[in-house]
Amino acid sequence: MSRFASLAELRAACLDLPGGHEAAAAVARREARLTKPPGSLGRLEEAVAWLAAWQGRNPPSLGRVEIMVFAGNHGVTAQGVSAYPPEVTAQMVANFASGGAAINQLAREACAELRVVALSLDEPTADFTEGPAMSEAEFLDAVSAGYEDVSDAPDLVVLGEMGIGNTTAAAALAGALFGGGARFAGTGTGVDGEGLARKRAAIEAALARHANVLNDPLRAAGALGGRELAAILGACLAARKKRVPVLLDGMVSTAAVAPLKALRGDALDHAWAGHVSAEAGHRLLLQELGMRPLLDLGMRLGEGSGAAVAVLVLRAALACHTGMATFEEAHVSDKGT
Amino acid sequence: MSRFASLAELRAACLDLPGGHEAAAAVARREARLTKPPGSLGRLEEAVAWLAAWQGRNPPSLGRVEIMVFAGNHGVTAQGVSAYPPEVTAQMVANFASGGAAINQLAREACAELRVVALSLDEPTADFTEGPAMSEAEFLDAVSAGYEDVSDAPDLVVLGEMGIGNTTAAAALAGALFGGGARFAGTGTGVDGEGLARKRAAIEAALARHANVLNDPLRAAGALGGRELAAILGACLAARKKRVPVLLDGMVSTAAVAPLKALRGDALDHAWAGHVSAEAGHRLLLQELGMRPLLDLGMRLGEGSGAAVAVLVLRAALACHTGMATFEEAHVSDKGT
Repeated sequence: MSRFASLAELRAACLDLPGGHEAAAAVARREARLTKPPGSLGRLEEAVAWLAAWQGRNPPSLGRVEIMVFAGNHGVTAQGVSAYPPEVTAQMVANFASGGAAINQLAREACAELRVVALSLDEPTADFTEGPAMSEAEFLDAVSAGYEDVSDAPDLVVLGEMGIGNTTAAAALAGALFGGGARFAGTGTGVDGEGLARKRAAIEAALARHANVLNDPLRAAGALGGRELAAILGACLAARKKRVPVLLDGMVSTAAVAPLKALRGDALDHAWAGHVSAEAGHRLLLQELGMRPLLDLGMRLGEGSGAAVAVLVLRAALACHTGMATFEEAHVSDKGT
Repeated sequence: MSRFASLAELRAACLDLPGGHEAAAAVARREARLTKPPGSLGRLEEAVAWLAAWQGRNPPSLGRVEIMVFAGNHGVTAQGVSAYPPEVTAQMVANFASGGAAINQLAREACAELRVVALSLDEPTADFTEGPAMSEAEFLDAVSAGYEDVSDAPDLVVLGEMGIGNTTAAAALAGALFGGGARFAGTGTGVDGEGLARKRAAIEAALARHANVLNDPLRAAGALGGRELAAILGACLAARKKRVPVLLDGMVSTAAVAPLKALRGDALDHAWAGHVSAEAGHRLLLQELGMRPLLDLGMRLGEGSGAAVAVLVLRAALACHTGMATFEEAHVSDKGT
C-alpha cells in the first residue's frame, strides 16, 4: 500500500511543510569573525548558512551524504526521441551496481553513499503522446517509493536519475508548468536534428492531449512525467518533512520537483541546484524556479553526477567554516582598525 | 644571484617555451569508450585532456599538487586604496603558518601541499604613483624567487597570493597591458566608495607616470606590479618549462601572469583559471586572455582559495576518467546500436 492513497492526500502533504531553523544567524555571526573580508568566500558562506538552517545546527554536518539515483523507463521512446535504445536504462543500473558509472566514481570522491532505486524497468510508462504516462495509482506508487526511500536522518540528500527518454518527459512537464510548449527540449544524450524534431513534436502532442490536466501540477506530473521523476518528487518532499537539505542534479531532477514549487512557493527552499546542465532547457527551468546553480561545468549526464561534484564544494565550504581561525585567535587586524 | 640577470635574459626565457605532449589523443580515445554519451562530462573531460597534454602521460596524475602562495607588500597603500592596514599581510602569513586561514582548510580538502613564500614584507614596493614599484634588480629577484620555488616534478601547481594593496597593482598592470585605464579596478577586500575612487585615481596616475614603459610587458610588471606578482610570473614560467599544468586563482594571480601572454600568445596554454573572482576586473581580464574559469562561486579572497576548490573538480574529473567502465566492460549498448 502506498504512503499516499490519493492525489488529494499527496496534495495536502505538499502544502503542509516545515520551515528552516534559526541556525543560520549563528553561522553568520561566526563567519563575520573569521580571518577573511566579510562575504569573501561568496557562495561557500551561503552554503554553510543554508545547510545549518535546514539541519538545525551550527556547524552543520556532512557526515552522512546520500546520493539517490532513481531509474525508470519511458514509453515515449517509441517516438524515436533518444539517441540510445531503452534497454540502456537497465544496463546502466547494472553498471551502477558493479561500480563502473561516472556516479560511482563521483560518489566515492564525495564520500557519499550511493543508493540506486530501479522502478519497474520492465514496465515502461505509457507513451504520453497516446495517453497519460501513468495511472493515478502508478504515479502515487512511484511518489511513495521515493518518499519512503529517504532514510531517517541523512545530512544531505542528492537526487539524480537514469532513464532513456526522460529528458523528453522532463521538458514536457516543464512546458506544462511554465508554458511555452517544447521550449525546454534539448538534445538529451545526444539525439540528432531529426531526433530533436521528433522530441519536440512528441512534447507538443502530449501538451495538447493532456491540456485538461495541466493546471494541476500533480496530475501533470502523472500524465507527462515518469516513475523516476515521481520518486524524486516524493524524495524531495520527504527530505523537506525531515528538514534535510537537498542538492538537485540536472534537467530531469529539477523538472521532477518543479510541481512542488507550483503547489507552494517556498516548497524548494531546502533544495539547491548543484549544477546547471548543458541540456538546453535546464538553464531556462532554473530561471523559472529562481534557482542559482552552484556549478556550470558543461555536464549533461544525469545520474546525479553534477550535484555529486557540487558536494565537493559544500565540503570545502564547511571545512572553511569549521577550521578557520577568528581575527582574535590569529591576531589579525580587522577591517579599518 | 638571480636566476635571471637581466630583463633581456628573462625576456628570452619567456619566448623559448615547450609545447604540450601528444597524450591528449589517448585521453580522447578512452573517453569515447566510457559508459556515458560522448562529451557528457563537459569540462571534466577537457580537464583530463589538458592535464594529460602537459604531464605527458595518460592517465594524468594528481598525486602531488602544490599550492604556492606568494606574499608581498605595496607602497601604494599610502594612497588609501585598501580596507585593511598593510600589517595584515604579515599577520596573514603567520595565520597561514599556524593553519588558520581559508587556504589551509582548502588545501587539506584538496589533498594539496601548501607552500607560502613571503617576499621582503618589511620592504614594501615603492608607491607607484611616485615612481616604479620595483627597480629592475628587485623585479628580477622576485621573478627568480618564484621561478626557483617551483619544485622538481609536481603534477599541478596552484598559484595564489596575499598582499594588502595588490588588487590595485593588479588592476594597474592589467590596464597597462590591455588598455582602458582603471577599468580593471574593483573593491578588493571591501574598500568603500571613496576608497575605490582613490584606487582608481592611483591607477590612472601610475599609468600616466609610467607611460613610457607600458609597451614592454616586463617593464610594466616591474613598474606597476609587486614582488608577489613577479614571483607568480616566475613560477608560471618555470612550470611551463617543466611542462607542469598550472591553476591560476583570482584577479591578482591572473594579472601577474598576463605579461607572459603579451610576450607570446601561447604562453598560458598550460594554465587554467580555477575560479572567476567576484572582484569586478577579473572577469574582464579573463575575457582579454581568452580564459574560461572552471568555477564561479562569488569568492574574492585570494590566497589561492578559488583555485584550490577547483582542484576538487580536477580530482573528480580524473576519478571518472580512470575509474569508469567502458561500454564493452559494462555490456552497455552504445549510441545508435
